[in-house]
Amino acid sequence: MKIRVLTLFPKMFDCLGESIMGRAIGKGIIDFKAVDIRQYSADKKHFKCDDSPYGGGAGMVMCAQPIYNCITDVDPNHDYLRVYMSPKGETFSDKAARELSTHENLLILCGHYEGVDQRVIDLCIDREISVGDYILSGGEIAALSVIDATARFVDGVLGKSESHEDESFSDGLLEYPQYTRPPEFMGLKVPEVLLNGNHGEVAKFRRAMSEKLTRERRADLLKNKDEGDK
Amino acid sequence: MKIRVLTLFPKMFDCLGESIMGRAIGKGIIDFKAVDIRQYSADKKHFKCDDSPYGGGAGMVMCAQPIYNCITDVDPNHDYLRVYMSPKGETFSDKAARELSTHENLLILCGHYEGVDQRVIDLCIDREISVGDYILSGGEIAALSVIDATARFVDGVLGKSESHEDESFSDGLLEYPQYTRPPEFMGLKVPEVLLNGNHGEVAKFRRAMSEKLTRERRADLLKNKDEGDK
Repeated sequence: MKIRVLTLFPKMFDCLGESIMGRAIGKGIIDFKAVDIRQYSADKKHFKCDDSPYGGGAGMVMCAQPIYNCITDVDPNHDYLRVYMSPKGETFSDKAARELSTHENLLILCGHYEGVDQRVIDLCIDREISVGDYILSGGEIAALSVIDATARFVDGVLGKSESHEDESFSDGLLEYPQYTRPPEFMGLKVPEVLLNGNHGEVAKFRRAMSEKLTRERRADLLKNKDEGDK
Repeated sequence: MKIRVLTLFPKMFDCLGESIMGRAIGKGIIDFKAVDIRQYSADKKHFKCDDSPYGGGAGMVMCAQPIYNCITDVDPNHDYLRVYMSPKGETFSDKAARELSTHENLLILCGHYEGVDQRVIDLCIDREISVGDYILSGGEIAALSVIDATARFVDGVLGKSESHEDESFSDGLLEYPQYTRPPEFMGLKVPEVLLNGNHGEVAKFRRAMSEKLTRERRADLLKNKDEGDK
C-alpha cells in the first residue's frame, strides 16, 4: 500500500516511525511519504501558501494553487483515492478503516488554519473524512489517526501474535477488561475464571463482560448491531 | 495548564512542537511533559512493562506496577484529572475539549498493545476517553488529538487573529466553505456575495451554507441542536 500525505508540516509524521507504521515501512509493506505542500507555492520568495478568507473572518485559508499543483504532481493520473481531513467529512470508524485498507494508493490532504480553499476540494478530492466531532488545529493529527487505524488492516502489518479481531468494535461490542500478572495487585485480584484454564468459561465470561460494558456505556452500538444482524 | 502524558513512546509527542502546542509551551501558557512509563518498571534489567493476558488471547497487556508507580510519582496527591485513552471510554467531542480545558492539571495515560491491566484503571483513573469508534495501535495518537483540541480552548493559546467561535460544532453546525485569492481558479469563481463587501449578506450566505451542509451531511447534529435549544 502506498500512502502520501500532503501537508505544510511534514515533520509531524516523523512520529509514525515509533508506531506499527514504522515497522510496516521497514518491512516494505507500506510505502509512506509526507510531501511538503509549501515547495509547490508559485511564490518562490516567501513560499506563501495561505491568504485571508474572502468575505472576512478570523484566520487564514490555504490557497488552491500550491495544493492543486502538489496533488497533480504526486498523482497525475488520479490513481490514488484522494481524501481530505475535515470536520465536515463523514465520521471515521473501524468499518471505514477496513475499507480504506483495501485501496492500493491513498493520498491524504491535511488542511491547516481555517482549512483550504473550497475549489481545490471541488476539483481534486474524492472523500472528506472526519475523525470526530472536535476541532484540531490541522489535519495532521487526524491523518495520523486514519493512517494508524487503516494500516492495522493491511495484511502483514500486525504480527502473528497480534490481532484486530478481539478489539472493541470488531464484533460491534466494546472489548472485555484485560488482566496480566501478578494475580493480586494492591489488594485487587484477577477474576478467578481467568486463572483456571477453562477456555469455554473464559470465553463466556469475556463475552458477558463485553455485553455488560457495551450496554452500560454505549447502548447505541448495541442498537446498530441489532439492526446490522437483522 | 499543566499536562502530563504517561506513555511507553514519549518521542511520539515531539511532533507537538510543530503545532499550536509548541507555541503555547514556548509562551509558557502550557507546561507539557511526556513521561516514560518504562523507567518505573521494577524490572531494572529489561524494564519489562507488559505480559501475556490472563485467560489467553492475542497480544500483550501493560502491567499494573510500572503504571501505578508512574502515576503516583507524577501525581502523588491526585491534583490531576486522570484520563485514560481507551476505545471503551466516553466519546470525545468539542464540548468535552472545552470542559477539559478548564482543568489546571491534566494527566493522560496511553495504553499500548492490548491495553492496560484493568486494576490500574480501577485504582487510579478518573475518566476514560475515546477519540472515536476506531482502533489505534496505542493511546498516543489519541492523546495528541485530545491535547490539541483541548489546548485550543485554553486562554492565550490561539492568537488574536484566530478563533474557535467560527469552527464546525461551535454552534452545532458544520462550517461554511472558505475561499481565498484568486477570485477565479481553474475556471471556478468565488461566490459573488463574498466579494461585494456587504457584511450582512456575507453572514446570511455563510449561515445558509452551514445549514445546508449540516442538513445534507450530518442531520444528527441538527437533531441534537434542536433538542439543546429547547
